Amino acid sequence: MISKSCLVVFSGGQDSTTCLYWAKQQFEKVHAVTFDYGQRHRIELEAARVICELAQVSQVVLPINSFSALGGNSLTDANQEIIGVGKGNLPDSFVPGRNLVFMTLAAAYAWQNDIFDLVTGVCQTDYSGYPDCRLNTMRALEQSISLGMDAKFTIHTPLMHLSKKESILLAREVGAYQALASSHTCYNGQFPPCGTCPACILRAKGFEEAQYPDPLVERGNE
Amino acid sequence: MISKSCLVVFSGGQDSTTCLYWAKQQFEKVHAVTFDYGQRHRIELEAARVICELAQVSQVVLPINSFSALGGNSLTDANQEIIGVGKGNLPDSFVPGRNLVFMTLAAAYAWQNDIFDLVTGVCQTDYSGYPDCRLNTMRALEQSISLGMDAKFTIHTPLMHLSKKESILLAREVGAYQALASSHTCYNGQFPPCGTCPACILRAKGFEEAQYPDPLVERGNE
Repeated sequence: MISKSCLVVFSGGQDSTTCLYWAKQQFEKVHAVTFDYGQRHRIELEAARVICELAQVSQVVLPINSFSALGGNSLTDANQEIIGVGKGNLPDSFVPGRNLVFMTLAAAYAWQNDIFDLVTGVCQTDYSGYPDCRLNTMRALEQSISLGMDAKFTIHTPLMHLSKKESILLAREVGAYQALASSHTCYNGQFPPCGTCPACILRAKGFEEAQYPDPLVERGNE
Repeated sequence: MISKSCLVVFSGGQDSTTCLYWAKQQFEKVHAVTFDYGQRHRIELEAARVICELAQVSQVVLPINSFSALGGNSLTDANQEIIGVGKGNLPDSFVPGRNLVFMTLAAAYAWQNDIFDLVTGVCQTDYSGYPDCRLNTMRALEQSISLGMDAKFTIHTPLMHLSKKESILLAREVGAYQALASSHTCYNGQFPPCGTCPACILRAKGFEEAQYPDPLVERGNE
């Protein structure tokens, strides 16, 4: 169904790339917002830019310096080792409240532009221990941004209940497959991807199960 | 009742100053978080620092550069005139999502420090058209941060249903009255306060109704 505008929260990763193309099928006009939160691998931001260009989607990059200031997690803190168990048995790559803040800022930007449909690639199936990727969190958030901005927001989560394999099949269905060659996943920030970090391993497993090659790996082999 | 720790979202204004002292009576240990969001009057940040020192409360200042980047509102945008009606009949000093983001970042900082009680001076009575100051927004937010960080947060809003007059009476009751001499309210960023902007006028009205002089105005006259 073609209708109105939406804003995709877009990291340049595999899942949000799939969502971007999904959104292009569902909405008349698609915008993307990417957060520059001090991620230690700037290659992510570059991937996001390239894919928006490929998809011909207008992109805004919003800075947020609060998470680096908060510190204490392995995705922004260069002094912290990656991948392990952090506080409260959550992975130490857990940045508390990160998705909540991203979604709320995305809503603020959307509100300013009369957009009330947000799209995010969060996924409960493979949620890796991140509580802010779950459906009930997204539903509660939808409620708080709608009340807080006095507007009826809808948060679309097309990947919420998909396995990695199913996400890849969806990527093919919505025409995102080739763009995945430009997406970024590797926790070590490498291209060609390191292939050994948990993110690369999870990604590879999905492509294996879907029985398609990963266009990113193929690009790395060229 | 004396119990555990709390984190006060503290701007250095009249309401959050009252909340800071209220919290000192309710909690064993009180911490404050102040947001440096690019407010065009830096005097607010200085007021917050001074009052935390007076109250002997440890304070952290968290930066957030996203709202200046979003632009389009009179509290951060030096090129925009103050006080009028902006989008959707909301005051043009409305920064969409501001309280939601502040509270969520406060929760993130609290979570890192094993604090699950947040205190904010938002007030539905005089909410000046800000939907993110209402009780239903705060309840929804409590839900989304609790789910998103997998912890049971409580958001305390001691001023929610008080008139400005009643807030001043509460300030006296909890020992915040003298500290109000160091608080900041004036939209024009002036000390002594300009006395003519809507914020100064609303503040003066409250003191008049409470039949106490404003310690800030008295300090200005010294």
